[in-house]
Amino acid sequence: MSESAEILFTNETFYHVFRTRDLGAMDELWARRAPVVCAHPGWQALTTREAVMESWRGILSNPDAPPIACRAPRAYVEGGLGFVVCYEVVGESVLVATNIFAREDGAWKMVHHQAGPCRAAPGEIEAEAPHGPMQ
Amino acid sequence: MSESAEILFTNETFYHVFRTRDLGAMDELWARRAPVVCAHPGWQALTTREAVMESWRGILSNPDAPPIACRAPRAYVEGGLGFVVCYEVVGESVLVATNIFAREDGAWKMVHHQAGPCRAAPGEIEAEAPHGPMQ
Repeated sequence: MSESAEILFTNETFYHVFRTRDLGAMDELWARRAPVVCAHPGWQALTTREAVMESWRGILSNPDAPPIACRAPRAYVEGGLGFVVCYEVVGESVLVATNIFAREDGAWKMVHHQAGPCRAAPGEIEAEAPHGPMQ
Repeated sequence: MSESAEILFTNETFYHVFRTRDLGAMDELWARRAPVVCAHPGWQALTTREAVMESWRGILSNPDAPPIACRAPRAYVEGGLGFVVCYEVVGESVLVATNIFAREDGAWKMVHHQAGPCRAAPGEIEAEAPHGPMQ
């Protein structure tokens, strides 16, 4: 599997874990040695692993959270660091997200997540944005 | 100069160029070989260098744009890729930004910029967030 494919797979795992509200898997997904940062929509950036996981505990335990889907992910990797830019479709809302991954013990772990609102309808995203690694 | 310091310097250059509306320097700042992505607040992600530069042409030529300042930047570098998470203070508004840089011909060049709204007052940011590389 190419490094871009590996990172896209890990990115898809992140959204699967998000959808299935699996806090243990979310904890597993984030880096343990590299510093981590997470900027949820509208929030200030959380800059400790403890604060990041506490935020996921709150988000994943919310029974009213609508399902989230990842659309049109594009990956770029260089050495031990890589990132994915993708869209998040949550009900009728669309967000754009940057997810950064670092290699730890041979696996890609999340070190940064930022999502913010995007003025687009879900249909526009699926129709227009390309999939796969960046060219 | 450490790699984190180099990336923080390039990040500060980006905001200086933004403030001084120097389109030529903005063009110089973005990578030429690596793929680039740019997600301005509320926009869909721009995924070609041409589209990214066209967007800056519009933004930097807007005479009504308020000055932008970068606050509390934190850098993380791994090999030929690194990123900065920081706040952007634009008048009384605060945004959170992710800026990713790749090394090209010995210099750090921008490959990704995402900024999105953050519910914080400018004073909160300057008081609370630490400066320097991530720990």
